[in-house]
Amino acid sequence: MSEQVKIAIDAMGGENSPGKILEGINISLKSNKDNFFYLFGDKNLLENELSKYAKIKNYCEIIHAENKILDDESPLTAAKKGNNSSMWKTVESQKNKISDISLSAGNTGALLVVSRLILNCIEGIDKPALAGLWPNNNNMSIVLDLGANIEYNEKNLTDFCSMGSALYKSLFNNPKPKVAILNVGLEENKGNDILKRTYSLLKKKGIKNFDFRGFIEGTQMMSGDIDVIVTDGFTGNIALKTAEGTANFITKNLKNSLNKISILFSYNSLKKFKQKLDPRKYNGAILLGLQGPVVKSHGSTDSLGFAHSIELCHKIVAANLIKKIKADLISIDH
Amino acid sequence: MSEQVKIAIDAMGGENSPGKILEGINISLKSNKDNFFYLFGDKNLLENELSKYAKIKNYCEIIHAENKILDDESPLTAAKKGNNSSMWKTVESQKNKISDISLSAGNTGALLVVSRLILNCIEGIDKPALAGLWPNNNNMSIVLDLGANIEYNEKNLTDFCSMGSALYKSLFNNPKPKVAILNVGLEENKGNDILKRTYSLLKKKGIKNFDFRGFIEGTQMMSGDIDVIVTDGFTGNIALKTAEGTANFITKNLKNSLNKISILFSYNSLKKFKQKLDPRKYNGAILLGLQGPVVKSHGSTDSLGFAHSIELCHKIVAANLIKKIKADLISIDH
Repeated sequence: MSEQVKIAIDAMGGENSPGKILEGINISLKSNKDNFFYLFGDKNLLENELSKYAKIKNYCEIIHAENKILDDESPLTAAKKGNNSSMWKTVESQKNKISDISLSAGNTGALLVVSRLILNCIEGIDKPALAGLWPNNNNMSIVLDLGANIEYNEKNLTDFCSMGSALYKSLFNNPKPKVAILNVGLEENKGNDILKRTYSLLKKKGIKNFDFRGFIEGTQMMSGDIDVIVTDGFTGNIALKTAEGTANFITKNLKNSLNKISILFSYNSLKKFKQKLDPRKYNGAILLGLQGPVVKSHGSTDSLGFAHSIELCHKIVAANLIKKIKADLISIDH
Repeated sequence: MSEQVKIAIDAMGGENSPGKILEGINISLKSNKDNFFYLFGDKNLLENELSKYAKIKNYCEIIHAENKILDDESPLTAAKKGNNSSMWKTVESQKNKISDISLSAGNTGALLVVSRLILNCIEGIDKPALAGLWPNNNNMSIVLDLGANIEYNEKNLTDFCSMGSALYKSLFNNPKPKVAILNVGLEENKGNDILKRTYSLLKKKGIKNFDFRGFIEGTQMMSGDIDVIVTDGFTGNIALKTAEGTANFITKNLKNSLNKISILFSYNSLKKFKQKLDPRKYNGAILLGLQGPVVKSHGSTDSLGFAHSIELCHKIVAANLIKKIKADLISIDH
């Protein structure tokens, strides 16, 4: 039996919260009872919601938070609300060793800022990065940074390689992930100066913690040949949202093209197809580089998507991700 | 009747050339006889190929070129081959007023360098950009830059807006296209400093040539709300290839999910779906910013895809794109 993982949840963040959060916990407990949840938010509201789920009461503790951070608030406004918000208290409980990991479906920008204000960076890391799960022909890859940083340098990119590799090891039990950097071509002279310097640094270092495969292009992101795909936060965010837009466009067109008879005859196979690509399975972006792990659930996901992000939290803590990151960091002499 | 458009073609560039090129010309002549083709390449080879197409002989002239540029050559090696290559002679014929536009399915990097060496930039333009057609829910958008430039500034981005708008007007007969800049968020404080300065420059200017809609995110690229999507060449290239990779991934998964019976029953609707998204319809990237238009066909497209790029060449010349670009340039005071 594995040790109980203590998950702090910002129960007020995201659409349909706290309803979907409690339902998500309920779903997660069906397959995994080794979690305990600290729920931060409006006590009355949460107690009322919790009363609907007799079975999960023993796995939850409610901690009152006066405020909540809204989705359209700027990170600065959110941070100014200070330690009264459910998000702040969630991450703070981790700093105070009450919980092992923080989970929020709330405002992403605010979560990045609040987490950085409360949790220090791992020694040697200048910039945390947001890592996400990405479907591929074999299973899943990890892509980072998905938008925590707009500005970056070669030190940041090498850190992202190490941190992404540690995350992949934690989630997929693979001792030497294949890591590549997203670029506009495969050759080492492609891309901007930062990318070229990162490539030459990593080649020169003779990395042992992961298998550095050089550059890959956008077309290969889903091939399944690479486990960890590293890029800056601007490019990663554009790639992620372009992939989402493309997937929506294609499935919408497909739906419009199919007539009722063919939908009827393809029902089961289309259902299988939909299940395989269900974005809820990939729900949960992980903020890497801080002294504690923070997971961001998609704001608009439902209870099943939220249950997936709970499972992600469990795996991260059980695999001791932060320790793995610290062990795998590469020192770069500038 | 419209005037005849003189198209210079690098007949040696791309997979299965020159065969697919002549077959592409053959296809294009079925719907449009107002083109004349100058074919540059190995004379014997081309004459032999041309002998298979009795009907297109009157629309073609072969001009011998000793060399051809290979797909894996660096742009520098390609440029060093100098004026003996079929690609060089193609673009040179445009400079010498023999042809109106150049078309090649060969090495993209080489075509960018050779074109810039031979054709001067339009006065006021520092950097040419590669623009492509992008499917959307309504019809098609134009996206640029797809990879001509890795480094850029706000002047380049405003030029890309003007040039993309002029191209959209030329192809879709729309007097005031909706133009937006690709970013990681919609608000004007999102993105890097260059993007923020570009936004404020364009807002301040009170542009009349096009309808500046600010920033858009990757998820909206295919919504059909925006006609011209502007980004730098690095980001544009990543977005394009990520979209291609995603589309391939989804259609492959869909294919694997469907059983034989459902494929049979969905045959016609799936065919319609495939036709709508057929990348050959979008074949042809346009190099904008030089004194003459240059079109790059996808190297691996077939004769039908090549015929689409011929049609694109015709439209560009018939609409007098270069004149439109010159008229629409915005002067930016640094």
